[in-house]
Amino acid sequence: MPQISQKGKRTPESPIRKLVPYAEIAKKNGVHVHHLNIGQPDIKTPQVALDAVKNNTIEILEYSSSNGSEVYREKLVKYYQQNNIHVNKDHIIVTTGASEALLFTIACITDSHDEIIIPEPFYANYNSFAIAEDVKVVPITSTIEEQFSLPKISDFEKVITKKTKAILICNPGNPTGVVYTKEEIQKLKDLVLKHDLFLIADEVYREFVYDGEKHYSILSESGIDQHAIMIDSTSKRYSMCGARIGCIVSKNSDFLFTIMKMAQARLSPPTYAQIAAEAALETPKSYFTDVVAEYTERRNVLVKELQKIEGVTVFKPKGAFYCIASLPVNDTDHFAQWLLEKFNSNNETLMVAPVSGFYSTKSIGKKQIRIAYVLNKKDLVRAVEILKLALNEYNE
Amino acid sequence: MPQISQKGKRTPESPIRKLVPYAEIAKKNGVHVHHLNIGQPDIKTPQVALDAVKNNTIEILEYSSSNGSEVYREKLVKYYQQNNIHVNKDHIIVTTGASEALLFTIACITDSHDEIIIPEPFYANYNSFAIAEDVKVVPITSTIEEQFSLPKISDFEKVITKKTKAILICNPGNPTGVVYTKEEIQKLKDLVLKHDLFLIADEVYREFVYDGEKHYSILSESGIDQHAIMIDSTSKRYSMCGARIGCIVSKNSDFLFTIMKMAQARLSPPTYAQIAAEAALETPKSYFTDVVAEYTERRNVLVKELQKIEGVTVFKPKGAFYCIASLPVNDTDHFAQWLLEKFNSNNETLMVAPVSGFYSTKSIGKKQIRIAYVLNKKDLVRAVEILKLALNEYNE
Repeated sequence: MPQISQKGKRTPESPIRKLVPYAEIAKKNGVHVHHLNIGQPDIKTPQVALDAVKNNTIEILEYSSSNGSEVYREKLVKYYQQNNIHVNKDHIIVTTGASEALLFTIACITDSHDEIIIPEPFYANYNSFAIAEDVKVVPITSTIEEQFSLPKISDFEKVITKKTKAILICNPGNPTGVVYTKEEIQKLKDLVLKHDLFLIADEVYREFVYDGEKHYSILSESGIDQHAIMIDSTSKRYSMCGARIGCIVSKNSDFLFTIMKMAQARLSPPTYAQIAAEAALETPKSYFTDVVAEYTERRNVLVKELQKIEGVTVFKPKGAFYCIASLPVNDTDHFAQWLLEKFNSNNETLMVAPVSGFYSTKSIGKKQIRIAYVLNKKDLVRAVEILKLALNEYNE
Repeated sequence: MPQISQKGKRTPESPIRKLVPYAEIAKKNGVHVHHLNIGQPDIKTPQVALDAVKNNTIEILEYSSSNGSEVYREKLVKYYQQNNIHVNKDHIIVTTGASEALLFTIACITDSHDEIIIPEPFYANYNSFAIAEDVKVVPITSTIEEQFSLPKISDFEKVITKKTKAILICNPGNPTGVVYTKEEIQKLKDLVLKHDLFLIADEVYREFVYDGEKHYSILSESGIDQHAIMIDSTSKRYSMCGARIGCIVSKNSDFLFTIMKMAQARLSPPTYAQIAAEAALETPKSYFTDVVAEYTERRNVLVKELQKIEGVTVFKPKGAFYCIASLPVNDTDHFAQWLLEKFNSNNETLMVAPVSGFYSTKSIGKKQIRIAYVLNKKDLVRAVEILKLALNEYNE
């Protein structure tokens, strides 16, 4: 029998999705599962985007340009301008989600055994993309005690080698909810200039910043045009995860030329989804005001309720819609599976994401779970109540 | 300035798309360009598919399952049954086009420096996908004299090494139009069983087979369940290249498990496009009868007209909608660019695909062009007329 590649064997299962079979069994047994595990918002997609697809007049569903529709890229330029990011349409290559944007970016700047430094805990699929390119992820640990703020630059300096090609950040952060300050971005700028590295920023949660703070993009920083690569997506911004439209934005022309060759090989991003994404740029500002207000309330309720549970450590994250909580258990992988397999309260239970899969360093974060506050407040309160009951029973 | 990867530098430009800038200049100068270069059919997408998207009732555009919608996969099972391919829904993983299916497949079965054998000339992006995975393509040359039929098995045997992981075929073939016989498929079966290799078949042109012949899938052959991997796409079948929906079909559970991990990392295939693809399965049979009749006529007209030109070698391809012609010139790369830059007849010219980019062996196929007969008959006749005039002027 022919064999799977070593790379294929090394590719990790999704830490979020590997609990799915247990959730399915619970559901078949009549248990209602509150999904706190996945970043699929319950927010309605903007009507203007939905309508654009329903009203499309396509008769031949043709390939689009490999770098994405020109009109869409022109409109994106205006959107970025409003966010203090000044680029032109040729700086943008439209991709099939941020996933493809990340995969292309890593392929474009690394060869086998090269290294990318990422503050951990980080979005677990970064690992999968790195493995796909045979690249080593070098983690720098950020801590819940310091609310996952940027680790010290000296920590980065310690692990930079000749094989280091880039630093990758997620800002606002999944799974941490961290929002890096302008000062932190500037420290990273100095660092990548000093060592001549790429700085990749996954900024897909740009709009989800709370308490009146503002997101600061790496592309708002001057002097790193050759180093800065921004990854973006419409998935979270417009609650349209199923569209699969993202993009890569950079001013480095060698980089863009190479990405374009990869984009040509896969022909084009999906056409219907680009129609939705283009129309979504017309979403009224009030949509985001409402969404941010809703998430702020959800976060506040969630954190307030979690803090009432003895042994739980949690803080108010500043952005995205995730919250990491440290629980009074030794292994949240086991606890999360137990919740689905063994526990229910009035035929209800929870699905949470153990955070250990978001760390690259072995055996840390084992007490932590990630909660996506994508449920309404009432359900969130009930979910925390179930968590409290479950912790009592689990720790008996 | 940070550097692009070696892999990125090695990624080839698309041989089809690299002439685009010259075509754009020609168009700006008021010259009408007949596009014989790209496999974008002018056939209307089935109404049932277009309507399904227009009538969708999505309010939150969510992720779909990573392996694709279950209902869609169930319907695909029935479609395959009608094509003498007997699989179940768990044998199918829906992908973002055949491009992603190929990329995942290669990643799943090869590590750096492994080898894949492909009869040439072959679909040029196979090269890009192989380079993306740091894999060596080992070509076996098929010839226009033998109408690009399967090269001798002894030719394959000669180049099989310990690093050979798979044989990849495109059947019906792009760019050759070849349709392999059942006997040829069975020879390949014996070969992969003997050497324990994967057999990958890109069968996206399944419906486009002419003169009453029938396509024979590798999945119709028993005894190679662990070896056979079929790549499919809705792009050509339903003239919906912009949807970006393909799939991987195999009965090898280790392979499927590994592909699924990669599929999870990129989250899901595009949702709207899956709606179109699912509905497209309801396309009435008459659609294909009409399409096949239309392409048969186009092919016949094209070949008949081409054969009238002195020095042109061409034959009637049996499948897909491509035709390779050998021209009385020494370098079709130069000729194709010249057509766009220097030539016009009544302000009309041609864009053709030089075939050299479809060969992996250097310096062969330099007299050949690929013509996609995706234009109506009248335009095809005019296009060949222009080609004849151009050849006269070029060879003066």
